[in-house]
Amino acid sequence: MIVVKVGGSAGIDYDAVCADLAVRWQSGERLVLVHGGSGETNRVAEALGHPPRFVTSPSGYTSRFTDRQTLEIFEMVYCGKMNKGIVERLQRLGINAVGLSGLDGRIFEGRHKDSVRAVENGKVKVLRGDHTGTVERVNTGLIELLLSAGYLPVLTPPAASYEGVAINVDGDRAAAALAVALKADALLLLSNVPGLLRDYPDETTLIREIPADQVEEYLTFAQDRMKKKVLGAAEAVQGGVRRVIFGDARAGQPVTSALGGAGTVVS
Amino acid sequence: MIVVKVGGSAGIDYDAVCADLAVRWQSGERLVLVHGGSGETNRVAEALGHPPRFVTSPSGYTSRFTDRQTLEIFEMVYCGKMNKGIVERLQRLGINAVGLSGLDGRIFEGRHKDSVRAVENGKVKVLRGDHTGTVERVNTGLIELLLSAGYLPVLTPPAASYEGVAINVDGDRAAAALAVALKADALLLLSNVPGLLRDYPDETTLIREIPADQVEEYLTFAQDRMKKKVLGAAEAVQGGVRRVIFGDARAGQPVTSALGGAGTVVS
Repeated sequence: MIVVKVGGSAGIDYDAVCADLAVRWQSGERLVLVHGGSGETNRVAEALGHPPRFVTSPSGYTSRFTDRQTLEIFEMVYCGKMNKGIVERLQRLGINAVGLSGLDGRIFEGRHKDSVRAVENGKVKVLRGDHTGTVERVNTGLIELLLSAGYLPVLTPPAASYEGVAINVDGDRAAAALAVALKADALLLLSNVPGLLRDYPDETTLIREIPADQVEEYLTFAQDRMKKKVLGAAEAVQGGVRRVIFGDARAGQPVTSALGGAGTVVS
Repeated sequence: MIVVKVGGSAGIDYDAVCADLAVRWQSGERLVLVHGGSGETNRVAEALGHPPRFVTSPSGYTSRFTDRQTLEIFEMVYCGKMNKGIVERLQRLGINAVGLSGLDGRIFEGRHKDSVRAVENGKVKVLRGDHTGTVERVNTGLIELLLSAGYLPVLTPPAASYEGVAINVDGDRAAAALAVALKADALLLLSNVPGLLRDYPDETTLIREIPADQVEEYLTFAQDRMKKKVLGAAEAVQGGVRRVIFGDARAGQPVTSALGGAGTVVS
């Protein structure tokens, strides 16, 4: 079993990812795809007059502040445009994909965090009305049910809180929780860079390997969104996933290349 | 088995529909929900600067002209905002709902109609680049799989063409095809009117009963979107569904009231 997470930033070639997945799926590999949609969500939010607001925690992690209106825009893009766009690509390739959010069947479940601590102008503030959380439980039963019946699951945030409220969760960490719960052989975190770079954005400084017990030490090299990927990788390897690979989804055969060792391999 | 279709026009009380469904589901009734999203799609399309375009066929049916950009907006609203909003309502009520489009697992399948004949300024024109069609096949296997495992399916257009392309299909007729395929005992078509009115919009002129063999004769009383509901009802009863009810989804217990005979009963 392989869990593939593909990001939502500019430059990602979803056609290439889907074509590569289709060939592997048809050869009998068990796969689950998780995707993002951050870049497109920002564009749609701007167009709808409710621009995105990002907050930085005291420990340096950046996240989207998700009020109710942002959550609805988030769902429109992640669950509507992105999810159905990917399902359609796979269907056109003859793969019977099924797209679901973490709300559906409570595939991804976690605690609703209503407030967030954010650093603004050097001061720590508490912002309320946030719809976020972290995936703590995965409904593997529904995923196994679909896989056994021949459907390729295509999953996306949001998740469900324990009360059934939609919450924005980080897609990389959700994919890590999924890989652990499914006892996946590998977790691929594909984005618009070749992997973890020692000196971002210089792509010649790609880090080829990270020993599993040293993942968190490499957080110092991670910029912005890559921090969550490194954190997700740490959670996955600690949870028993043998290989986590940060790979490039901009062209070629992103899944096959990553599994072949291109990118940054954590093992 | 009961198939409930709830429309997407102004005034529909989704909280009331979901609360009613939840009680019935928890008492052991087998249900599938299908929903629309037309009103909200119009609003979002306007806000995004790609206003809706409706065309009227020579036989008098009105439909949305669905170019690629409209299809993406349609997916954002139907599969994102509306579908996940309904799934969230049900999850909050303790119902393990699973929201899917007709693309997912090819639940709704039909032929892609790329061009549409439309009457504009008294002349018949052929418009190309349309992404529409009619549901001809239903993947009951996936729906039965979910129902058997305890999940309440919440379905929405678009459908998949036989080539896997997303196509806009009428939700009422999709629900009718679903009710026939599932051999449902009843199909409820709930919207923001009490039922079929002899003299629209005078609600005191509600038609209480329509004999199954005369449904098409009642098309003369149907305005705009109600025409597709009458057509769907005709298709459902011809396909073996014993009762089709046009009911009111604006308040109260919309499902229970309709099953109790409020609205227009076709049987």
